[in-house]
Amino acid sequence: MEIVESTITLKLPEGSNEVLLKNLYLSCDPYMRNLMSYIEGTKDEGFPSYTPGSPLTGFGVSKVLESGHTNYEKGDLVWGFTKWEEYSLVASTSILFKIEHTDVPLSYYTGILGMPGMTAYAGFFEVASPKKGENVFVSAASGAVGQLVGQFAKLTGCYVVGSAGSKEKVDLLKNKLGFDEAFNYKEEPDLNATLKRYFPEGIDIYFENAGGKTLDAVLLNMRVHGRIPVCGMISQYNLTQPEGVTTLANLIYKRIRMEGFAVFDFYHLYPKFLEFILPHIREGKIVYVEDIAEGLENGPAALVGLYSGRNVGKQVLVVARE
Amino acid sequence: MEIVESTITLKLPEGSNEVLLKNLYLSCDPYMRNLMSYIEGTKDEGFPSYTPGSPLTGFGVSKVLESGHTNYEKGDLVWGFTKWEEYSLVASTSILFKIEHTDVPLSYYTGILGMPGMTAYAGFFEVASPKKGENVFVSAASGAVGQLVGQFAKLTGCYVVGSAGSKEKVDLLKNKLGFDEAFNYKEEPDLNATLKRYFPEGIDIYFENAGGKTLDAVLLNMRVHGRIPVCGMISQYNLTQPEGVTTLANLIYKRIRMEGFAVFDFYHLYPKFLEFILPHIREGKIVYVEDIAEGLENGPAALVGLYSGRNVGKQVLVVARE
Ligand SMILES: NC(=O)c1ccc[n+]([C@@H]2O[C@H](COP(=O)([O-])OP(=O)(O)OC[C@H]3O[C@@H](n4cnc5c(N)ncnc54)[C@H](OP(=O)(O)O)[C@@H]3O)[C@@H](O)[C@H]2O)c1
Ligand SMILES: NC(=O)c1ccc[n+]([C@@H]2O[C@H](COP(=O)([O-])OP(=O)(O)OC[C@H]3O[C@@H](n4cnc5c(N)ncnc54)[C@H](OP(=O)(O)O)[C@@H]3O)[C@@H](O)[C@H]2O)c1
Repeated sequence: MEIVESTITLKLPEGSNEVLLKNLYLSCDPYMRNLMSYIEGTKDEGFPSYTPGSPLTGFGVSKVLESGHTNYEKGDLVWGFTKWEEYSLVASTSILFKIEHTDVPLSYYTGILGMPGMTAYAGFFEVASPKKGENVFVSAASGAVGQLVGQFAKLTGCYVVGSAGSKEKVDLLKNKLGFDEAFNYKEEPDLNATLKRYFPEGIDIYFENAGGKTLDAVLLNMRVHGRIPVCGMISQYNLTQPEGVTTLANLIYKRIRMEGFAVFDFYHLYPKFLEFILPHIREGKIVYVEDIAEGLENGPAALVGLYSGRNVGKQVLVVARE
Repeated sequence: MEIVESTITLKLPEGSNEVLLKNLYLSCDPYMRNLMSYIEGTKDEGFPSYTPGSPLTGFGVSKVLESGHTNYEKGDLVWGFTKWEEYSLVASTSILFKIEHTDVPLSYYTGILGMPGMTAYAGFFEVASPKKGENVFVSAASGAVGQLVGQFAKLTGCYVVGSAGSKEKVDLLKNKLGFDEAFNYKEEPDLNATLKRYFPEGIDIYFENAGGKTLDAVLLNMRVHGRIPVCGMISQYNLTQPEGVTTLANLIYKRIRMEGFAVFDFYHLYPKFLEFILPHIREGKIVYVEDIAEGLENGPAALVGLYSGRNVGKQVLVVARE
């Protein structure tokens, strides 16, 4: 990744039906690494692809400066796909939603009120079908998605344990985010034993963010009729040879449903999601931890940091505050 | 396994509410290997456990000689759990169903009309939710379960390809069982390429019987919103260190549902299943291939043969014909 400067004219080209945006907050998301590799059979499956030499695309919160499309007008705040630059000219279809509620931090639309929020909501409520009293385990638990899954689980009356990669994150999970228990997976030499300790009766729902070794150990600890919404496998994204998962026969013995999902299959639920989550935010019943990097020039480091766990909470990149 | 002879009195003990059975057909089933190892957390989960030194238990078709339980009477034909012996004294709860239809071969109640038939029915229709025109792949396709899945897929209007371990089995699949295509997986050095050849547009439903390398290659070839009913992973049952599956991230990219299931969760559908399948058998629209071994003394070899693919079709063991 490199930073390129150039001079532009802030004006919509004559006759264009595109939208000229001023980018405010950009979102650093793990899937961006995957788009940099080729994934067979998934082209055109919801994400814009990357062209070497062109700016990255990604989720962001932007302000409309000029619009060639009747759906948008100057001054609108929007979130959706934009480019990693100060100003962007985008197709109106890149914009996903107009922002109607501004009594909450605007940056939230890259996180709790944006794609990661919808991911946690869809994966937990729609895919995992949680029931009160069930045992829930979340990996990458302090991250953009995980911290919400844990809080949703508590709201549902579940027992929830999270794993994360540092003491600071573990403290956050237990003391701020309301997880019943949390542990630092990097300090657990035998994950199977660790999970047995936290889940003597087994796991009903494993919200899968990590993949690899974590999944291998979790499958040994699932309960009959357990569910594994497969949200991500971040531990595998940078490997040329992914780790092998050896415990899949437990899917049969325990009759487990393991289901991959993608947030963009659930965007039709966004209004319902906002109705659910906004009151919880306003009343302080759901909190959200952000990790804010300032300035486009710090974008590459912030993005790369996701894969080593440098971020504490949702990684946001501020381009401009208004 | 060893054969033991002893003399018994064919009489129900005074006051017993058990049932005295004459065993006719015994079923050789892959799960029996698993019961010989310990599977964490699955004790009492539907299968009787094994005690070294005691006769194996397994599915069988038996005739009631004497009954201490009001549900059964002398002369009834039944199927359910019995022991690998000529005569067995069993708890009435071991018997799963009374046999009402005897215009079809009695041995069928170990296969197409018994546990494997219900397995194919539940796994395909209930777990995989097939739709006309979908692409279906079945491993261990000529076996007790697989041969039915293929025929159910054809009845549903799907394109179906099966894999099996010999030329004889491949011919059977294509010429007798109505699969669109079939291949011998032992002669395919690159399963991923093989699947691409048979499924240029990808697989909608993979009926998983094999596990390991097959699953690894299949995941690369699944279509978006594909389903994998996980019935068995026979390639892994005899390994001390199971093979690692490295392609699970495709669950996310393709939003795949992979679901383990156990036939005993579906026995309530048995009457509905019989209603569906009996007419098809009588009209010759569904056929069933059996591999019949004669005599208890040939039981151990027949059972062990499952794990090397010696059986061609459902492996039955005849103890007595009536
Ligand atoms: N399916 C969908 O539609 C969808 C949508 C959004 C996100 N996702 C997925 O959801 C997961 C979480 O995303 P997010 O946005 O919430 O990211 P995040 O958790 O905010 O950031 C990534 C975190 O992953 C953890 N991590 C990095 N390498 C790891 C490894 N080798 N093993 C275990 N954990 C590791 C790090 O936390 P630690 O310090 O705790 O290791 C890091 O902070 C990702 O897998 C992502 O791909 C899926
Ligand atoms: N979930 C449930 O409730 C349930 C119920 C019944 C059965 N099952 C499972 O369904 C599967 C099929 O059972 P079945 O009764 O129909 O058995 P079957 O197919 O009649 O017999 C087993 C067959 O498995 C194949 N096989 C053996 N080793 C293999 C390997 N290393 N790789 C690939 N294939 C191998 C052999 O056929 P080839 O010559 O083609 O290799 C063998 O003939 C098994 O995995 C079983 O555990 C599950």
